[in-house]
Amino acid sequence: MFFLPKVFLSSSEVSNIEEKSYLCPIVIYSDLLAMKIAVAQLNYTIGDFEGNKTKIIEAVCRAKEQKVDLVVFAEEAINGTPAYDLLNKVTFLERCEDALVEIASHCDNIAVIVGLPIQSGASTISAAALIQNRRIMRYVGKKNIVSRDDKQNLVPSKGCEYVQIAGRKVAIVVGQDIYTEQEYGRYADLIVNPISIPYARGIVENRYTMYRKLAYTKGKPVVYVNHVGGQTDVIYDGSSAVFNSKGEAIALLRSFEEDFVVVDLDADNKPLPIPEQNKTANVFRAMRLGLRDYFSKNGFRKACVAMSGGIDSAVVAAMAVEALGAENVRLLMMPSQFSTDHSVDDAVKMAENLGVEYNVIPITEAYKAITETMKPVLGGTAFDVTEENIQARIRCTMIMALSNKYGYIVLNTSNKSESAVGYGTLYGDDIGSISIAGDLYKCEIYDVARYINREKEIIPENILLKAPSAELHPGQLDTDSLPPYEVIDSILYRMIEEGQHREEIINAGFNAEDVHRIHSMLVRSEYKRYQFCPTLRLSTCPLGKGIVIPLTSKYGFGY
Amino acid sequence: MFFLPKVFLSSSEVSNIEEKSYLCPIVIYSDLLAMKIAVAQLNYTIGDFEGNKTKIIEAVCRAKEQKVDLVVFAEEAINGTPAYDLLNKVTFLERCEDALVEIASHCDNIAVIVGLPIQSGASTISAAALIQNRRIMRYVGKKNIVSRDDKQNLVPSKGCEYVQIAGRKVAIVVGQDIYTEQEYGRYADLIVNPISIPYARGIVENRYTMYRKLAYTKGKPVVYVNHVGGQTDVIYDGSSAVFNSKGEAIALLRSFEEDFVVVDLDADNKPLPIPEQNKTANVFRAMRLGLRDYFSKNGFRKACVAMSGGIDSAVVAAMAVEALGAENVRLLMMPSQFSTDHSVDDAVKMAENLGVEYNVIPITEAYKAITETMKPVLGGTAFDVTEENIQARIRCTMIMALSNKYGYIVLNTSNKSESAVGYGTLYGDDIGSISIAGDLYKCEIYDVARYINREKEIIPENILLKAPSAELHPGQLDTDSLPPYEVIDSILYRMIEEGQHREEIINAGFNAEDVHRIHSMLVRSEYKRYQFCPTLRLSTCPLGKGIVIPLTSKYGFGY
Repeated sequence: MFFLPKVFLSSSEVSNIEEKSYLCPIVIYSDLLAMKIAVAQLNYTIGDFEGNKTKIIEAVCRAKEQKVDLVVFAEEAINGTPAYDLLNKVTFLERCEDALVEIASHCDNIAVIVGLPIQSGASTISAAALIQNRRIMRYVGKKNIVSRDDKQNLVPSKGCEYVQIAGRKVAIVVGQDIYTEQEYGRYADLIVNPISIPYARGIVENRYTMYRKLAYTKGKPVVYVNHVGGQTDVIYDGSSAVFNSKGEAIALLRSFEEDFVVVDLDADNKPLPIPEQNKTANVFRAMRLGLRDYFSKNGFRKACVAMSGGIDSAVVAAMAVEALGAENVRLLMMPSQFSTDHSVDDAVKMAENLGVEYNVIPITEAYKAITETMKPVLGGTAFDVTEENIQARIRCTMIMALSNKYGYIVLNTSNKSESAVGYGTLYGDDIGSISIAGDLYKCEIYDVARYINREKEIIPENILLKAPSAELHPGQLDTDSLPPYEVIDSILYRMIEEGQHREEIINAGFNAEDVHRIHSMLVRSEYKRYQFCPTLRLSTCPLGKGIVIPLTSKYGFGY
Repeated sequence: MFFLPKVFLSSSEVSNIEEKSYLCPIVIYSDLLAMKIAVAQLNYTIGDFEGNKTKIIEAVCRAKEQKVDLVVFAEEAINGTPAYDLLNKVTFLERCEDALVEIASHCDNIAVIVGLPIQSGASTISAAALIQNRRIMRYVGKKNIVSRDDKQNLVPSKGCEYVQIAGRKVAIVVGQDIYTEQEYGRYADLIVNPISIPYARGIVENRYTMYRKLAYTKGKPVVYVNHVGGQTDVIYDGSSAVFNSKGEAIALLRSFEEDFVVVDLDADNKPLPIPEQNKTANVFRAMRLGLRDYFSKNGFRKACVAMSGGIDSAVVAAMAVEALGAENVRLLMMPSQFSTDHSVDDAVKMAENLGVEYNVIPITEAYKAITETMKPVLGGTAFDVTEENIQARIRCTMIMALSNKYGYIVLNTSNKSESAVGYGTLYGDDIGSISIAGDLYKCEIYDVARYINREKEIIPENILLKAPSAELHPGQLDTDSLPPYEVIDSILYRMIEEGQHREEIINAGFNAEDVHRIHSMLVRSEYKRYQFCPTLRLSTCPLGKGIVIPLTSKYGFGY
């Protein structure tokens, strides 16, 4: 019979852990001269207790074979995160606890720090459990609830606590407490920090810098362990590491892949150079991982993409082949009477470059039938956005038919610039099971496209060079109704990512009319984003999930 | 120059309000023998500072005319709520403050308690401002952040504080602190509680009971003031009241309408009977208010509904006429080859009962064109859900064309039972700008339908009597693929509203196969609800917004 976590779990006693520490005999089974730590960076699935537990136990066994003193896993490793409202289901928390008890049974002669949510009164906290010699010794809770996903379902706990492991005093700090709590680590020989911090553009390099400085200023070694993998729209990049007390990296785990590294804190470790980060390559790897895991974790296999011959669908199709294999991707070209010949040609050329199955199905007849049938309602009116949207919605109907009939999952092809200004058709080209490029500005789409072509031409050059057009009326160009994307993107970036007020942007030299117009489009199109599909988060400000504004408001976007 | 709220606003000083109370001279301008209180229950618009301020000032002036000592407004009255991420915009908080300063300038010889968000350090709290004699004397913050909408953007403040008004000691308690804080009111002569608590089925009667008990057990008069009106999907029912220290109602404000009542606490007030509540009538009034305000606050005027001849679209069409007027509603009947004659007849009869414009536009030709065109992809396969969905998506394309061309806002026609089990077509009948019945189980839809027909037949009897059918293939009935709605609704109600585990439901006597099947449908259809339109919230557990589960998870719905 193992130590029952119920003692801690059943009540508000969690907050009295310090007082109860006499319950936890300190077990010292290693001398001070060497401390071997294993860092296990794994890809978990939310609620997959069997799978997650098995992975964790395998890592524990591997660490034991290497005579490791302490193996560290990520925050909320046992359950997978973000679990949203599941965090407040008693049965869910019980399953976490059961898994922890089973993990503990494999931890003879090794200490383990592993994250899971635990009940605290009527609420839930994110905790790191310390297992020593097959006993669950202690839970250390997270104090600072920072992320939007966490705020709904977690309450603050006490924060950093000190424990004895292998004769060292170890400060356990969970999640963002590492950034926000000043007073930890002072009395520790080592700081251990399980985290669950998702990828966003530029975060990998910033995180290395942050931890390097932290280890240096605290003068203590720091171990941090992150998740890796996609959870619907959230992507974890991993990039876990160990820094020594001089702020030098002595273990660096891979980005965007599972990894397991053992490091001896007391050995003469040669400092490792922080790998140079290529932002576009990281975005590419994040998209690929997010897409791949969305499919594998949901049991999906095949994807389809509506190919217009434009840059957005080209990038999405190329990413789909990269993530899922050409044999699992099918493209549908659906030209209308307004599509240019080069669009279909470019799309076909791209399909052949990729070696995927494709069909060209014109929407002309369907468009004719719908506009004819609708004559009693629409007859006598001039061609306008109505007829443009009919085309986009026929395409939605057709690609969804392909999806329904054969089980292809539809990939959305929107980008962040379009989505921000509402330049897309609700129930038309805005549809899909998941959007993989919806958090990338149009200019970033081009960056990724060029990266895709880094070794050979996958996306035909013509797609990269031609002017963007929705091709919904003759000779249409995006610039007919929008400023050029370089201008839109610069203004949007300031509004969204930097939270600048319109006045600030105008003062920075942008055309006032453009700024007000883009702001107004941003505000008026929130209703489209409300109904948008899950979007791989590649920035710290994804629209829809990252910024929530009232649909009915006299205030606008608040910038 | 008025007292500058900046003194409190600029920093963490808000939490030191008690220490700073020497800054607030106590002004006594009324004797102990009479205290007249005005309760102002108003319909605000989020971010409409001009409009909200004007309404508040008008109520203050009206109260002054009646020689009132204290006028009380709702929590977050100045800004309107839920304002989501606007609550963390500095400019938004500044506008709140500016409005407060202007309101204060009208408050000579009267005390005012009015809610607004204020900055507290780097965060925002929900506060009640006390104005006395044109000065902003104090802010009392809310301690318990209970609602899902609040958790994202508000942080806890200190909670209940005591102030002197008209010679009485008044406890100001903001929002849900009234439920959760035990230790308030002990030293008070009166408890004042500005709230912003939305409508949900059954809440009106429960709230009266709760406050009656509270006034009785505390032995203190209690004044609570709520919002009234719709804010996109959120509906406030008003129903503000004053209870005396014996727990008797001495002022009861209207439900679902603005109201303004003056009560003299010390007069010999005759206790008012708590009005009997009719749950269906309340649901009806909530839907009407929600729909009306969604239109008026967004500047919309005209609505359209896709009429199938079934009960759901009939209820939505009748509500649209009730809320917006027959002249602003247009119906579109879009029969396919599988529609029964009676469906079109019933729908036409209903349109004539309502006196609204309508068109019958068959989808047969469009269906033929799409299936013909798609032959290279779908050819040779048997009729299945694919072809059913094509019909629903053609209807979406057509009604959206009507909407795009003439500016009719499309009302969604789904109900909660269908939405819960995923019995609806994404980008088909699941579409719309707003769903007004999407938080009502199918059985409740019938209740509302009968209520609509309470005086005369608006919804043709045949629509109420016939068996529900999507009519997407010949002779189809909902019961072909689903258990009867009475069974579905009972099981869903236990799963969703009562959070029961499957085992509990089976133990209560339900067929195990039905329970597991419905649970599985509930889990598998979350992806459709993710892309669903805003839905008037009529229960405490609206799907999508009220319960958020991971789209990718091995755990299921958590029940």
